[in-house]
Amino acid sequence: MQIDHQVKVGVLGATGTVGQRFISLLSTHPFFIVAALGASERSAGKPYSKAVNWKQTVPIPSAVRELVVYPCIPEHFTECAVVFSGLDADVAGDIEAAFREAELAVFSNAKSFRRDPHVPLIVPLVNPSHLSIIPQQRAVHSPPLKKGFIVTNANCSTTGVVVPLAVLEKSFGPLESCIITTMQAISGAGYPGVPSLDILDNIVPYISGEEEKIEWETLKILGGVAETDDGKKAFDMHAKHPLRISASCNRVPVVDGHTECVSVRFARRPPPSPQQVREALTAYASDAYTLGCPSAPRHTVFVHEEPDRPQPRLDRDYQQGAGVSVGRVRQCRVFDIKFVVLSNNVCIGAATSSIINAELAIARGVIQV
Amino acid sequence: MQIDHQVKVGVLGATGTVGQRFISLLSTHPFFIVAALGASERSAGKPYSKAVNWKQTVPIPSAVRELVVYPCIPEHFTECAVVFSGLDADVAGDIEAAFREAELAVFSNAKSFRRDPHVPLIVPLVNPSHLSIIPQQRAVHSPPLKKGFIVTNANCSTTGVVVPLAVLEKSFGPLESCIITTMQAISGAGYPGVPSLDILDNIVPYISGEEEKIEWETLKILGGVAETDDGKKAFDMHAKHPLRISASCNRVPVVDGHTECVSVRFARRPPPSPQQVREALTAYASDAYTLGCPSAPRHTVFVHEEPDRPQPRLDRDYQQGAGVSVGRVRQCRVFDIKFVVLSNNVCIGAATSSIINAELAIARGVIQV
Amino acid sequence: MQIDHQVKVGVLGATGTVGQRFISLLSTHPFFIVAALGASERSAGKPYSKAVNWKQTVPIPSAVRELVVYPCIPEHFTECAVVFSGLDADVAGDIEAAFREAELAVFSNAKSFRRDPHVPLIVPLVNPSHLSIIPQQRAVHSPPLKKGFIVTNANCSTTGVVVPLAVLEKSFGPLESCIITTMQAISGAGYPGVPSLDILDNIVPYISGEEEKIEWETLKILGGVAETDDGKKAFDMHAKHPLRISASCNRVPVVDGHTECVSVRFARRPPPSPQQVREALTAYASDAYTLGCPSAPRHTVFVHEEPDRPQPRLDRDYQQGAGVSVGRVRQCRVFDIKFVVLSNNVCIGAATSSIINAELAIARGVIQV
Amino acid sequence: MQIDHQVKVGVLGATGTVGQRFISLLSTHPFFIVAALGASERSAGKPYSKAVNWKQTVPIPSAVRELVVYPCIPEHFTECAVVFSGLDADVAGDIEAAFREAELAVFSNAKSFRRDPHVPLIVPLVNPSHLSIIPQQRAVHSPPLKKGFIVTNANCSTTGVVVPLAVLEKSFGPLESCIITTMQAISGAGYPGVPSLDILDNIVPYISGEEEKIEWETLKILGGVAETDDGKKAFDMHAKHPLRISASCNRVPVVDGHTECVSVRFARRPPPSPQQVREALTAYASDAYTLGCPSAPRHTVFVHEEPDRPQPRLDRDYQQGAGVSVGRVRQCRVFDIKFVVLSNNVCIGAATSSIINAELAIARGVIQV
Repeated sequence: MQIDHQVKVGVLGATGTVGQRFISLLSTHPFFIVAALGASERSAGKPYSKAVNWKQTVPIPSAVRELVVYPCIPEHFTECAVVFSGLDADVAGDIEAAFREAELAVFSNAKSFRRDPHVPLIVPLVNPSHLSIIPQQRAVHSPPLKKGFIVTNANCSTTGVVVPLAVLEKSFGPLESCIITTMQAISGAGYPGVPSLDILDNIVPYISGEEEKIEWETLKILGGVAETDDGKKAFDMHAKHPLRISASCNRVPVVDGHTECVSVRFARRPPPSPQQVREALTAYASDAYTLGCPSAPRHTVFVHEEPDRPQPRLDRDYQQGAGVSVGRVRQCRVFDIKFVVLSNNVCIGAATSSIINAELAIARGVIQV
Repeated sequence: MQIDHQVKVGVLGATGTVGQRFISLLSTHPFFIVAALGASERSAGKPYSKAVNWKQTVPIPSAVRELVVYPCIPEHFTECAVVFSGLDADVAGDIEAAFREAELAVFSNAKSFRRDPHVPLIVPLVNPSHLSIIPQQRAVHSPPLKKGFIVTNANCSTTGVVVPLAVLEKSFGPLESCIITTMQAISGAGYPGVPSLDILDNIVPYISGEEEKIEWETLKILGGVAETDDGKKAFDMHAKHPLRISASCNRVPVVDGHTECVSVRFARRPPPSPQQVREALTAYASDAYTLGCPSAPRHTVFVHEEPDRPQPRLDRDYQQGAGVSVGRVRQCRVFDIKFVVLSNNVCIGAATSSIINAELAIARGVIQV
Repeated sequence: MQIDHQVKVGVLGATGTVGQRFISLLSTHPFFIVAALGASERSAGKPYSKAVNWKQTVPIPSAVRELVVYPCIPEHFTECAVVFSGLDADVAGDIEAAFREAELAVFSNAKSFRRDPHVPLIVPLVNPSHLSIIPQQRAVHSPPLKKGFIVTNANCSTTGVVVPLAVLEKSFGPLESCIITTMQAISGAGYPGVPSLDILDNIVPYISGEEEKIEWETLKILGGVAETDDGKKAFDMHAKHPLRISASCNRVPVVDGHTECVSVRFARRPPPSPQQVREALTAYASDAYTLGCPSAPRHTVFVHEEPDRPQPRLDRDYQQGAGVSVGRVRQCRVFDIKFVVLSNNVCIGAATSSIINAELAIARGVIQV
Repeated sequence: MQIDHQVKVGVLGATGTVGQRFISLLSTHPFFIVAALGASERSAGKPYSKAVNWKQTVPIPSAVRELVVYPCIPEHFTECAVVFSGLDADVAGDIEAAFREAELAVFSNAKSFRRDPHVPLIVPLVNPSHLSIIPQQRAVHSPPLKKGFIVTNANCSTTGVVVPLAVLEKSFGPLESCIITTMQAISGAGYPGVPSLDILDNIVPYISGEEEKIEWETLKILGGVAETDDGKKAFDMHAKHPLRISASCNRVPVVDGHTECVSVRFARRPPPSPQQVREALTAYASDAYTLGCPSAPRHTVFVHEEPDRPQPRLDRDYQQGAGVSVGRVRQCRVFDIKFVVLSNNVCIGAATSSIINAELAIARGVIQV
């Protein structure tokens, strides 16, 4: 992948937590350049530095400080080859649909379209092949679209776990059962998000809707794209090999980084050994990296040998938070293998995934730049 | 159970974390009265208030402040009907054995004797019937003992989970599989214990030896006491119905209270519904409470209906930390039922269990007072 | 003080953080009994257990669970000899005024009337004598009131520091200068209050309006009630001996308990020694305790000798959080004496103060029960 | 400053907290290259990756992973133009003295030589002119040294506060009084350092020896180098304008970054306004930056305008932690001006200062490279 010119992008929900992260990441991107910002009416018309309550650990990029914020209307974004959406779920659906209708390429963090049968749900280190649904997504639109489409990325806790699960399936055949317990960072809930009185010296063993997301999204991501009799494409939801997934989600007093304890059972007997699993995870190279996507991590999965890793504070920023870390790969007395996975929920679990997805769409010619 | 006179007790490891908790709890006990304190040579000879680095949230009980600390030698404890041990594992074995040999009744928090085939491992809300091994424990000693014995209580993370598991087995027959992920408080590691740099804004997905303890101790506790052909008694380790248990243990930034996410599969089909499980847990009354043990909680298991409970900060002190709290009882997509259990690791998970065990031993006549 | 019958009380803002604390504290009070609850229209008409998002570490008192919540209108509280207000500042002013007008005795945590020249601002361990303004408060009302009045208690951070300052002035004469730096718990901001992303692994060196409250309220509390030429009473704001106070307020990741570092300079030379200060603080007995107010702490100020105390987690619950803890009394290289004071912001810093103030009003005959 | 070749450096105490930070920082340095590592006998002989319990958030630099650790004996460091010492205070004195005697240039974080009348105590953004004492340090050694010397940097909490104090004195003349309250991060205590049970949901209002360090070191740093009658140089400890400093030090649950609340009184009347102070702080350029030291921050002091900044989590990594952040510059009701200062205790408060000091020594020709 070799892009020698700047590619203009827009950011929707630019003042929110995910929007701020988009802006931070894009400020050092080799070819994406932020050309338009969208936010609510309350922010519209203000320079970005006045509209935002900036909460990142780096200063506002100077190229964006004075950019005037627009309302989230497509006409302000027509120059943009790519539009990233960090919109809240309650408004994302209508706005993103309008942008698609206006022939814009939308890469969304919101959940609104994840279950849409024509919208791919892409974890960029796992299933970029699902981009193949996009022609159909355009075709079923009325009137049919030439350029517009929506790609979503997965929920942050899904993203973390689905990466090693995908590698395991690619290496050792289908999984049969998977039990997951998450310990999720407060930043996953946005700002103001979790009240401090709920989480200091505490755990909240519940995150609304989160377990269902992991259980459903994982099947869409790990499943294939089937061709139906009438030539249509459809996500098969891992149908050929039913996979049962059970998730328990917890909020913990950690700023960034979701930690997940996972036990899996393989369909194939005998199952792989822990050492074989470690080697497969280490060896895996994502298409995104192979294709030269500049935001893709060199190591999709880093496998820790020390017994007490990965830890969110020490490991979440490895590779700018773009890969996932796995540790404690060992036998499970009930299933076959158990391990711990850590992913940076605000990077690979959110904005970084959207950015790599856009890079992939360019690399694969879905977007012409 | 009706004791009208004071019963003198000793505390070994009195200056340590568990020892301090024993002393706090015993200061308001209806009949136990602390008569002797044992600690390392470094503390011996000092008044307790000078020997201890007191870290409890209540002041040192006035009755104990000036008590002189002894070395952990039985001769200083001969008056004591009961000796509680909060000793560290590295010294507990020899000292507790010496106390037993000196015909003292030892109730230990240490792991040293938990795997001993003649020492009962008793979670007082679950398996007080295991006290029946004590005559044999005395008999196999050389020379046979008249009064001395050792009773251990379980590891703190085992204690929390084994209570609801026991109720489920009593209500719905044997369990077949159980996957547990723990989120354990820092106080479980004693003092100084976990360095703050390891746990602030962090999780450590590993606690040395902890997973093995849960997986092994649960079988001893939930199992029965079998009679062998030669009339000997033996713990059967749940042998009649093999139970597979897999635990993943994590340290989290919570001061007190272990939270555990549990998924279980029953042998019997169809399995109970979540509502049946809730009712069984709520209805369970421990023998310890029925027998009138003053430290036993009125409600062994409190079942929360709110989706976001139990939480350690809000629920750990319910019933002075003597019961366990269960919440989120729901169907598991892989096994049958999943739920969250919270137990106060420094109360029912440690000192409170030893104290109730001693109350049970008195109630059942194993100790004459 | 000897009250042999129940005294009915009402709680305004009953579902809020301070309201919940009132209800917890009153559930074990020897003579106050909660008879009426007031909250916003949204809660009105519901049983308390349905209206409240209960966040206390003890269960909802059973006597209150099913009490129906009223809107905050005086007619529902006519039976109440005392009304406690935990209302938010934005609504407290009008509601409390209406209750006073309806001849009710209001004890408020809100800031609305603290600067009113006829409303006493009473820290019960310090200046109960300011109750003497109440006849005038009733008289200036139009039409004059027979029974109604408002008493406020101080801001939580003011309360902590003003207790030792008052003792120092009573013992060693007026203070001349005082520099205070606070480290305040998150519970001081109510619920949801401080977002966790703002305070986990962080400090916020600013609390809106807080420094001005400490600097102003301290003068009203430590000052006297002067008689003017026309026989009117007026708070003198410490006018006879000008006292300069400078406060810097910080929010820290502590659940409960405000810690404050204080340096003081006395007017009198030579100033007292640290040992004299320690002795004076220890010896001080509040009028509230002497008069037998049941919620007054036995020890107004507990003085720690260990160099690393008081600490919020270990010391905030001493005496049910009703006293204050002082430590590190030592010489200051710039002023005379410096020390650390800890107070429980949700107890003596809030609801406990209102309750003792009501007890004092009864003890002094301001309220007839 | 223009160095076109590599300059070999050694790190003493390489496996400790400060040593790890030296190694991280030096791995990206433009001309320093780590050539030798020293640690205790226990580590000696092992490759660094095996000797260290690495706790940084970046991986071990590959250039250092396999470097064999030496005992702290000068003969292994003879190639090094500069030796950085992160040794613990209990061993630093003898080892650093031996290295100086062996004609090595030692830049130390330890406190051992800070009070030595011939050793400069240099905060590189403040008083590099104190390097002028080094010829005398060499001369008084027996036998006199040609190249060897020791430079120390200040305690981490001193460093943070002394930077703005120095700017204020340079801009507005001598200070007369200064009261400081610190809220210090746990990383300041090293590893394992502060037990988590002492600091989670807590504050410890005491750090052994810390207040004395701030009160003494500040005078040495802000003072000048006087010429005595016999031509000797001596640190004047700010003698011409006596400056009274009082510090109160607290440990808070923050990973990195010391926050300090400061009130100052100037000798000159009238004192500067807050706006003048802000402008002076912003305008200040350190000699280290002007001389081109590559690790010196472009902005010595960043002045925040928002009322709630600086905050440790958001601001500690600004300029790689090499500058200091000041906020809330406002009038003090007791003194003249008060403000909040934040410094990254593990960067400018420790290793970064030593590195800039070494760069300064090269820039000024004290070391020939």
